[in-house]
Amino acid sequence: MITSRRNALIKYASRLLERKARDREGKFLVEGVRMVREAMKRPELVEYVLVACDVTGEMEEEFWRDAASVYRIRPELVKEITDTENPSGIVAVCRKPVWDWESIPESDGLILIVDNLRDPGNLGTILRTAWAAGVDAVFLLKGTVDMYNPKVIRSSMGAVFHFPVFERVGNDEVRELCHRGYRLVVADPKASLVFTDADYYGNVAVVIGGETAGISAVFEELPASRVRIPLREGVDSLNAAVACGIILYEAWSQRHLVRENTSMI
Amino acid sequence: MITSRRNALIKYASRLLERKARDREGKFLVEGVRMVREAMKRPELVEYVLVACDVTGEMEEEFWRDAASVYRIRPELVKEITDTENPSGIVAVCRKPVWDWESIPESDGLILIVDNLRDPGNLGTILRTAWAAGVDAVFLLKGTVDMYNPKVIRSSMGAVFHFPVFERVGNDEVRELCHRGYRLVVADPKASLVFTDADYYGNVAVVIGGETAGISAVFEELPASRVRIPLREGVDSLNAAVACGIILYEAWSQRHLVRENTSMI
Repeated sequence: MITSRRNALIKYASRLLERKARDREGKFLVEGVRMVREAMKRPELVEYVLVACDVTGEMEEEFWRDAASVYRIRPELVKEITDTENPSGIVAVCRKPVWDWESIPESDGLILIVDNLRDPGNLGTILRTAWAAGVDAVFLLKGTVDMYNPKVIRSSMGAVFHFPVFERVGNDEVRELCHRGYRLVVADPKASLVFTDADYYGNVAVVIGGETAGISAVFEELPASRVRIPLREGVDSLNAAVACGIILYEAWSQRHLVRENTSMI
Repeated sequence: MITSRRNALIKYASRLLERKARDREGKFLVEGVRMVREAMKRPELVEYVLVACDVTGEMEEEFWRDAASVYRIRPELVKEITDTENPSGIVAVCRKPVWDWESIPESDGLILIVDNLRDPGNLGTILRTAWAAGVDAVFLLKGTVDMYNPKVIRSSMGAVFHFPVFERVGNDEVRELCHRGYRLVVADPKASLVFTDADYYGNVAVVIGGETAGISAVFEELPASRVRIPLREGVDSLNAAVACGIILYEAWSQRHLVRENTSMI
């Protein structure tokens, strides 16, 4: 039972609320029963779990059984290790998952590239959507919000544990992706092609930008289809996560249809 | 120039942060330049605008020109009339728009029914998406978060001013909609039909539920197609606004194709 805010485990977890510490330590925080359960599916990534002693024992047993280090803490200490207003009383300290290019498919790969997205809630929802839609890997270009921000982790619903997400991707890596045969499909409200009229077969990388800044210059230089989602007159734009879902499920729908037809031959 | 928090206009606006006062007065708050601009497209709905005196004059002139009552206030008073951490310094007091059943199309209508949605940010994003996707009207079933909650208004991007949104809709009104020839298409993660395999032609009402509670009992009793969005194994659900966007744009795509083919005959 940890009672002091000066306890080393509390202090360490508390520091991970800041990006600098997350970057330096290669660790991040996961909060809430549901999210910690997702983390437990990759037990090698869970360092330790802190549970307020007023949280029911059943939950604790569940985590204990899965052999991570679980510590009870005084309920007043919870606010030291969370940025939420209504904390759930359970926080895990996790190692960042490491992925390499090996995890990028050579054929029939679907990649999502996120460009210049600043809103943590939106990025989390985008990761959750990409995971659901069967995306093979996500590239986060430099300038995008930190994917290990607690708010991103919360709204991602645990996606970060289960599929490759590459941070701080530079222009050279985007070029390398094209070199490996990936075609770029860039969401762009000013495009003339409607998103349903583009092809999403084979190796495809869908590019979603932030809501205010435009798309990075690297996509001007590389061959890319630009697609727009039709909007009623007077409407400025869609939320980036919603736009991402609409395009990824159009891709799913086309790719799924092709597989069905192929298997029938 | 208003300098006191006891000024009647400040006190009135401040009260509208609470749902009770919004319900009683039939008024709500709109914050930020972009949103107040949207409100100004319906000038008959704008009662008055409060602008902090440290906000640039250009903006004030724009609103002044449009003939609403604009008052300068001391910057310290802004926190009285907003629930945001980084307020923009401009808040309008608006009348709730009033809509009636006349605005519901007799043929080829697309209605969105929102059932049991509690998250204000999600509801705002759903309204923004429905507006963009050409939905004719939105029904918010009882139990859904107040659409005039400042957070809903912010994330709706002004949609509430431009198309009919009906609040506190009861089961009888849903039955009446069916009676008028609207077919229900209910998003349901447990459905066997995939959303792309349903028909969205003619009079259609798409039903989107909250993320935790299920769909209301009225949809069990009425004839309805239930559709699911396919999810990768291990994924629990999509964000409600993302799911809504995916289904509404499938509807858009099918309905658009029909119109194109019809006009070619």
